[in-house]
Amino acid sequence: MSDYIHDQQALGVSVGEVELQSVTFPSLTLDSGRALEPVTIAYEMYGTLNEERTNAVLVLHALSGDAHAAGYYPGEAKPGWWETMIGPGKGFDTDKYCVICSNVIGGCKGSSGPSSVNPETGKEYGVTFPMVTVGDMVRAQKLLIDHLGISKLLAVTGGSMGGMQALEWAVAYPEMVSSCISIASTRRHSPMQIAFDEVGREAIMADPNWNGGDYYQGEPPDNGLAVARMIGHITYLSDESMHEKFGRRMREKKAPDYDLSLDFEVESYLRYQGEVFTRRFDANTYLYITKALDYFDLAAGRGVLVEAFREVPDDMRFLIIAFSSDWLYPPYQSKEIVHALKGNGLDCSYLEMRSSHGHDAFLLENKDLTRVVWHFLETTGRQQGLRLA
Amino acid sequence: MSDYIHDQQALGVSVGEVELQSVTFPSLTLDSGRALEPVTIAYEMYGTLNEERTNAVLVLHALSGDAHAAGYYPGEAKPGWWETMIGPGKGFDTDKYCVICSNVIGGCKGSSGPSSVNPETGKEYGVTFPMVTVGDMVRAQKLLIDHLGISKLLAVTGGSMGGMQALEWAVAYPEMVSSCISIASTRRHSPMQIAFDEVGREAIMADPNWNGGDYYQGEPPDNGLAVARMIGHITYLSDESMHEKFGRRMREKKAPDYDLSLDFEVESYLRYQGEVFTRRFDANTYLYITKALDYFDLAAGRGVLVEAFREVPDDMRFLIIAFSSDWLYPPYQSKEIVHALKGNGLDCSYLEMRSSHGHDAFLLENKDLTRVVWHFLETTGRQQGLRLA
Repeated sequence: MSDYIHDQQALGVSVGEVELQSVTFPSLTLDSGRALEPVTIAYEMYGTLNEERTNAVLVLHALSGDAHAAGYYPGEAKPGWWETMIGPGKGFDTDKYCVICSNVIGGCKGSSGPSSVNPETGKEYGVTFPMVTVGDMVRAQKLLIDHLGISKLLAVTGGSMGGMQALEWAVAYPEMVSSCISIASTRRHSPMQIAFDEVGREAIMADPNWNGGDYYQGEPPDNGLAVARMIGHITYLSDESMHEKFGRRMREKKAPDYDLSLDFEVESYLRYQGEVFTRRFDANTYLYITKALDYFDLAAGRGVLVEAFREVPDDMRFLIIAFSSDWLYPPYQSKEIVHALKGNGLDCSYLEMRSSHGHDAFLLENKDLTRVVWHFLETTGRQQGLRLA
Repeated sequence: MSDYIHDQQALGVSVGEVELQSVTFPSLTLDSGRALEPVTIAYEMYGTLNEERTNAVLVLHALSGDAHAAGYYPGEAKPGWWETMIGPGKGFDTDKYCVICSNVIGGCKGSSGPSSVNPETGKEYGVTFPMVTVGDMVRAQKLLIDHLGISKLLAVTGGSMGGMQALEWAVAYPEMVSSCISIASTRRHSPMQIAFDEVGREAIMADPNWNGGDYYQGEPPDNGLAVARMIGHITYLSDESMHEKFGRRMREKKAPDYDLSLDFEVESYLRYQGEVFTRRFDANTYLYITKALDYFDLAAGRGVLVEAFREVPDDMRFLIIAFSSDWLYPPYQSKEIVHALKGNGLDCSYLEMRSSHGHDAFLLENKDLTRVVWHFLETTGRQQGLRLA
């Protein structure tokens, strides 16, 4: 997902000032067989948990996201990454629900990850950090939800990798989930998605500053990370949105310079995006999280996808959303999920939204998305006999 | 375009052993206003030029191509890049036509380019080589065609950047062209095409070995060039062809290693493609040629595209071909050219071929492409009163 600067008015009312919290657990066993000891999970909460603790919505973030999904840190002008969707009266209505978002393990924004200090050595883990999977991320979130005393989540939701985690929640802890909203996501990466991830990883590891993952005391591999981000960023947009946004406009001039400098606006935009990203993201986390994305296969060990949902109870509700111009996570991937849900007779709504914004559509102002999510949660709450605080 | 290993039988009869030739001209003035002095053009010829010199077909190559379009160099097992299309009885039938292919200027396979030695300094040009445009490439080819004593080409043709050059030939030297076959090409790059090129350039220039373009006495920027090639390679394939070719198959194992090594076949394929490319291609040429691609705009200085074809005579014939799964040069780009040609009442056939091979479809065995091109040239020859040698 991209870094967007939103129009303040379009963002609507905010949850206001927020705070990053964290909790540390002694141990978590991972899919690889290794244990993470200890494991810290950073999270934020917006809205109020009702007395029965039945109004919690767990928001899961994408590759480059973090726990800061809404509101503002003191003194900062940039809101959380899903400010368009989370807040009073918004799709995830904080007047009614308690929204929780945690940084995934393997991340670099407060949860245990490669840039964390290994207590055994007193030094950053780097590539000695164990590999994590989407299943591990969800298992870590389960520790947090248990810790918060929540026995059942009203909804699990996210876009892209967040959608994968939401599906994994539904399958791994079916008794703890009332509804699942997966947006612009997939049951597993296609070879093209793996290929784009791999080129990004190659760019990072080819940067001499990467130094085998051990760069925390020196210069980080910013050039490689910027190239990886630029590749990713192109795949989050669409041909159509790039035509609208840049066309072939040249920078501050009408004619080419006939040298190797940047000529087109789209070039300087991309370079800027790459550079900004290096200021807020850890290169090793980029490697770890893209690997987790590529490993993810909801049907792994289960044969066909329809088997994955066998243990899901009849009253769990699903909302699967795709965007027409998303060529990275194309609508056919969402439809595969829908077919498998229907194959189990489960309650599933599918929506393919018309948008020119490509994969990033889930992050942008979208009245339709807001309305659909708001009503879906309202109905889910009614079915669960939800009482508000 | 990608490096393919073809099935020998599917390739059919070859023109056999071929030889790279070259010719040097004293000077060529470029679009930038700078002059290239001298300018060398490397080329190959297949088939026999008839007495009237009216059976010449000029084949133009794509970004990573060269003059070696067909046949074999002595002792080499790999044929030229368009062996599927050029040879006795093939689409470009060397029993009837004399096929000529030259390396573009700015290239690295015999024609003047950044890796050539500057006679003024006795040292490789590097980035002191003047920037070239598609117009400049065609102007250099015109010197070659004049030198060969050919006053009119039966056809100009190519895929991708080769298609751009073919269109540029039709517009720049309309009196010298009987027909133009543009395949999987465009009248100008979209912002998405520019964006992918720019990320490739960033990857090369971020490699410390690039050293401002001055690396010919040391280690070349192979890591950066490999990443650029990997990005390009993904865009030449399609989601469908990658599913067919790789799926999510893992390398020599059934389960992930849970480390940063390569897990999937598509990853090792891509890394191999990147590595092989560095053995045959110059990084500075990659920078120069992608810049030329991004600069190209057939309508530049002419307002709308329909104006570009105003000087084209009524009897010039056009064949515009696109491939259904080509998302890098999507069919809509070919249709824009067709509309502009029709807007001038010109003789234009358009064909959108069904193929799962993406942009690379023009390089692969394709009976339909062969048949269509063979008949198009046959008709063009008949209309021109072509007599064969």
